[in-house]
Amino acid sequence: MKATIVTIGDEILIGQIVDTNSVSIAKKLNNIGITIAEKLSIGDSKEAIISTLQRAMQSSEVVIITGGLGPTKDDITKHTLAQMFNSQLIYNDTEGEHVRALLARRGIEFTELNRGQAMLPECCTVLHNAHGTAPGMWFDTPEGGVVVSLPGVPFEMEHLMEDEVIPRLKERYTLQSIVHSTLITRGIPESILAERISSWEDALPDYLHLAYLPAPNVVRLRLSAYDVEKEQASREIESRFNDLRKIIGDNIVGYEGSSVEAQIHDILIKRGKSLAIAESCTGGMIASKFTAMAGASNYLLGGVVAYSNDIKCNILGVNRDDIECFGAVSEVVALEMAEGVRRITGADYAIATTGIAGPGGGSKHKPVGTVWMAIATPNGSRAMMRNSGTDRGQIISRASAYAIEMLYEEIK
Amino acid sequence: MKATIVTIGDEILIGQIVDTNSVSIAKKLNNIGITIAEKLSIGDSKEAIISTLQRAMQSSEVVIITGGLGPTKDDITKHTLAQMFNSQLIYNDTEGEHVRALLARRGIEFTELNRGQAMLPECCTVLHNAHGTAPGMWFDTPEGGVVVSLPGVPFEMEHLMEDEVIPRLKERYTLQSIVHSTLITRGIPESILAERISSWEDALPDYLHLAYLPAPNVVRLRLSAYDVEKEQASREIESRFNDLRKIIGDNIVGYEGSSVEAQIHDILIKRGKSLAIAESCTGGMIASKFTAMAGASNYLLGGVVAYSNDIKCNILGVNRDDIECFGAVSEVVALEMAEGVRRITGADYAIATTGIAGPGGGSKHKPVGTVWMAIATPNGSRAMMRNSGTDRGQIISRASAYAIEMLYEEIK
Repeated sequence: MKATIVTIGDEILIGQIVDTNSVSIAKKLNNIGITIAEKLSIGDSKEAIISTLQRAMQSSEVVIITGGLGPTKDDITKHTLAQMFNSQLIYNDTEGEHVRALLARRGIEFTELNRGQAMLPECCTVLHNAHGTAPGMWFDTPEGGVVVSLPGVPFEMEHLMEDEVIPRLKERYTLQSIVHSTLITRGIPESILAERISSWEDALPDYLHLAYLPAPNVVRLRLSAYDVEKEQASREIESRFNDLRKIIGDNIVGYEGSSVEAQIHDILIKRGKSLAIAESCTGGMIASKFTAMAGASNYLLGGVVAYSNDIKCNILGVNRDDIECFGAVSEVVALEMAEGVRRITGADYAIATTGIAGPGGGSKHKPVGTVWMAIATPNGSRAMMRNSGTDRGQIISRASAYAIEMLYEEIK
Repeated sequence: MKATIVTIGDEILIGQIVDTNSVSIAKKLNNIGITIAEKLSIGDSKEAIISTLQRAMQSSEVVIITGGLGPTKDDITKHTLAQMFNSQLIYNDTEGEHVRALLARRGIEFTELNRGQAMLPECCTVLHNAHGTAPGMWFDTPEGGVVVSLPGVPFEMEHLMEDEVIPRLKERYTLQSIVHSTLITRGIPESILAERISSWEDALPDYLHLAYLPAPNVVRLRLSAYDVEKEQASREIESRFNDLRKIIGDNIVGYEGSSVEAQIHDILIKRGKSLAIAESCTGGMIASKFTAMAGASNYLLGGVVAYSNDIKCNILGVNRDDIECFGAVSEVVALEMAEGVRRITGADYAIATTGIAGPGGGSKHKPVGTVWMAIATPNGSRAMMRNSGTDRGQIISRASAYAIEMLYEEIK
């Protein structure tokens, strides 16, 4: 079972946006056993849409399109699909009323353009978009395939995929499984690693595909199996990775998987423990990573973005003399921040960061990128320092990741 | 002049990575006047690479490929290109010595696999990769087109594009310009905006293409012109956008590049005023939007992520009776949060949010998506309520945008 993903929009072709929709769709299709043959991005052009879809329908059973369903003149996907499938647009009452009600709740008037969003090709199955004004459309092709058109707004697309598309695909097709598993190695360059594990690699069964994914100081090794029985393939992959541990065990960090913050989220909910966060240089990013997850209010009491020294002292109770003496970016201040936020919130665990995100503020002894992070726990506190490069965005994101990992190491 | 961008790698097709390479390449090509006809991602398969390149070479003069040039067995791009162009691989001394020296500097031994990276198709022009071990390759096609193969490591690809590919393309082809300019509007929903500016839109000359790019509370309007004389097209676009200001001037934030928070950032720095933030449902996102900008420490004192009621009361000084009486998601609590964080930090301005991000916690009178936001200023406080949909991520991001805008309205 193969699928082609087509994202439509000039904004993709000129590099104005990063296409994350196709990433999310690819994951969801892989999860139910559908292989992606190709991903394409094309412009808002009728000719490009028609020729691309015709080619895609020849090579793939399933074609998923996103984009071009808005109310304005540059949105041409729906009209093009109607023409391609020889179908006229008719007004859909249910969708029309939904759009009207949705806009009314936001205090927006219902215009002729919005009415146009409820004009849908007669031949398609309408996929109700509970979260937006553009419905999805499901077309059955004469050859037994499926073309699905979804809005380009990421969260509307996500909901339609989960609630409408995936269940229908599972019902329509009998699907085998696809299994991917990725082991993270650290400290061996790709070429050396490949030589060291070559006999292990050569001994892999034909249906397991190995990929090397190099990044600075890290090589991820992915084993993939397509069209397999899930449990059996997973067991085989696990066993092969266990063999690998005998060869390069010291360099294996672990499996790629759910994010570290998601694992902390699960652990804290299960144990009924609470968390608070004191952030200087990461400026709210750690808190927002936790609060992005539904259910965070079960354990996250809150946090303090202690950007100024006054807030560090007045709210978190950091000792002003320590800031004078050691500087705001120091082990002692990081520890006092973690302990302070734990004390004032009554949380079981606390995370703190203080660092120099740049581009200004660095010095010879504390260059831009220097970040101290600390955790405070029922068993005491500890701190560590990491240098996280020279780019502000990267420093904030790396320091957030390091600090979260510190807590994970403690409670895992 | 058209180009096709092809990114190669199973990791793209299974959704393991987000493809940012094609975004960067598209921008650089647009900058020198080359239009992207199509972007494609395919797997590490010889058949897919050959058939895709053959098709791309028919529709585009320039084809840029990234990925599959590493030293391991899953990297097949180079061998496939050599076969396609009927060329044998020969050892390139210069590149071989470069790889050896590069690895030596990192303390890595030079292996047979690295030697393989200096084996290059005889017919190509080698593009020296100063920052990595995989050189780029430039192939002239019999039809007068160009196929360029670049490594997939973003940093190496970037340098090769800038230093080798772009200069050669400019030398090879006489190129016209492409001009894009994007104006940011806020506060008018897409459908209403389209009606309000329809006569302006209809009067645009044929060679200017208008695109609507909607986001929470913001619609970006992009005008694009292809194959034009740059100065003249830029002047025409500026003049058209000036006309637009006469219609919706109050809703225009500015040209893309300046977000609302960036404008607040500039204003506060210029006036020497300070800011503090108290966030419940937005959970740190507002603070992290400000702290992402270099120089935020000039005005941002900090913030409190007041997720639990205890923190709202104990740290921000919200009246517990008010929470009992009106609920944590209420006008009075939003105001007390804004005033509280302003008081305890001594900031000139404060922003606060309290809402129900869901999926749980909603009720009939306060459904998921209900968010109260408030600002406190030297001239008093005010609050407003907005419903921001039903999706957790969307609620957090919309509420953040609304709250930031509330402050902007006050100080602009």
